[in-house]
Amino acid sequence: MDQNIKNLNKELNQNPASRQGTDIKKDEKYMREAIRQAKKAYALEEAPIGCVIVYRDKIIGRGYNRRTVDKNTLAHAELTAIRKACRKMEDWRLEECTMYVTLEPCQMCSGAIVQARIPRVVVGCMNPKAGCAGSILNLLDMKEFNHQADLTIGVLGEECSEMMKQFFRELRERQKAKKKS
Amino acid sequence: MDQNIKNLNKELNQNPASRQGTDIKKDEKYMREAIRQAKKAYALEEAPIGCVIVYRDKIIGRGYNRRTVDKNTLAHAELTAIRKACRKMEDWRLEECTMYVTLEPCQMCSGAIVQARIPRVVVGCMNPKAGCAGSILNLLDMKEFNHQADLTIGVLGEECSEMMKQFFRELRERQKAKKKS
Repeated sequence: MDQNIKNLNKELNQNPASRQGTDIKKDEKYMREAIRQAKKAYALEEAPIGCVIVYRDKIIGRGYNRRTVDKNTLAHAELTAIRKACRKMEDWRLEECTMYVTLEPCQMCSGAIVQARIPRVVVGCMNPKAGCAGSILNLLDMKEFNHQADLTIGVLGEECSEMMKQFFRELRERQKAKKKS
Repeated sequence: MDQNIKNLNKELNQNPASRQGTDIKKDEKYMREAIRQAKKAYALEEAPIGCVIVYRDKIIGRGYNRRTVDKNTLAHAELTAIRKACRKMEDWRLEECTMYVTLEPCQMCSGAIVQARIPRVVVGCMNPKAGCAGSILNLLDMKEFNHQADLTIGVLGEECSEMMKQFFRELRERQKAKKKS
C-alpha cells in the first residue's frame, strides 16, 4: 500500500497534467494558500498541515494544525476551516465548496468532509500510515454514505511532502537534543 | 445488516446482563446523563442525541446535537463533549476516559474518538443507516489505526431509540403541516 501511494504521489508530481478535467492553475493557487496556513503550524512546532475552503473563487475558511498548542483533539486544519466556512455560509452544508488540504485527511476530518457534504477535495500529499481518503480506507467514496466527494491528489505534492519530512527530521533532532541535556 | 443490529439491540435490551465485565449500574447512570443532554437537543427541535465523557467517575464534558441551530457541521454531541473534555484535561488525548452517547456515532465522531484515544465508548442505540461504530463500518476497531476503543452497546437502548423515533414522527408531522399551510 505505502509503495503504491509513493508511486502515485511521484507520478502525479512528475506529470500533474495527468489530472484531466481540473483547472490545474487554480488548484495550485489555492494549494499555495493551504501551504501558507501549514507554515503557521510549522512556526509553532506543530506538524505543518494547512487547509483552505473555497466557494465561487473566494476563500471562505482557513485553518492550520494547532492540536498541541491548543490541547484540543479537534484543532486539525480541516476542522477549523470547516467551522469557519460554516460560519461564513451560515449553513452546516458546504455544498459547491472545494477543500484544499496539504496532507491527506485523517478519519475524523474525512468524516467531517462527508458530514459537511463538500463536493470536492484537493490533497497535496498522501499519508500512507493514517490517511482516510485513499490510504487506509476512503471515507470520501463509500456508497453506503449519503454523500461522496471527488478527490484530486498530488497538487504541489512534492512541496507538501517535503514540508512534513523537514518537520519530522527537526522533531527527531529536538528530541535527541532534549535527551542529551 | 439492519436486521442483525435490530436483533442485537433487542437482545441487549432484554438481557443487559449479557454485557459481562462492565458495571451496568454505572453505565446506566451516565447514559441517563447523556439522555438528559439529548433532551436539550429535542427541546430545540434538533435530532435528540446527547453525550457525556467521564474521567474517574466525574463528568468532564457534555454535549448535545446543535447542528441546525448553530449552522455548524461540527456541532454534534460527541464533538462538543470532546472539545470540553480536552479543555478540562488540558490535553488532546482523553486516555482513561469513557464516552457515553445515546446514538451510534457517525464517521466524523467515530474518527474523533480514535483521534482522542478514548479507550471506551458506551452507546445507547445503533444507527443502522449511518453509524460507524459497527453498522456501516467500525472505525473504533480497525487494526490499521494507532488506537482502538472498546465498545458497549444497548445501554438504555430502548429509551434512546424511542426518543429518536418520536423526534422523526413529530418532524414528519411538522413537515406535513407546513406543506398544508
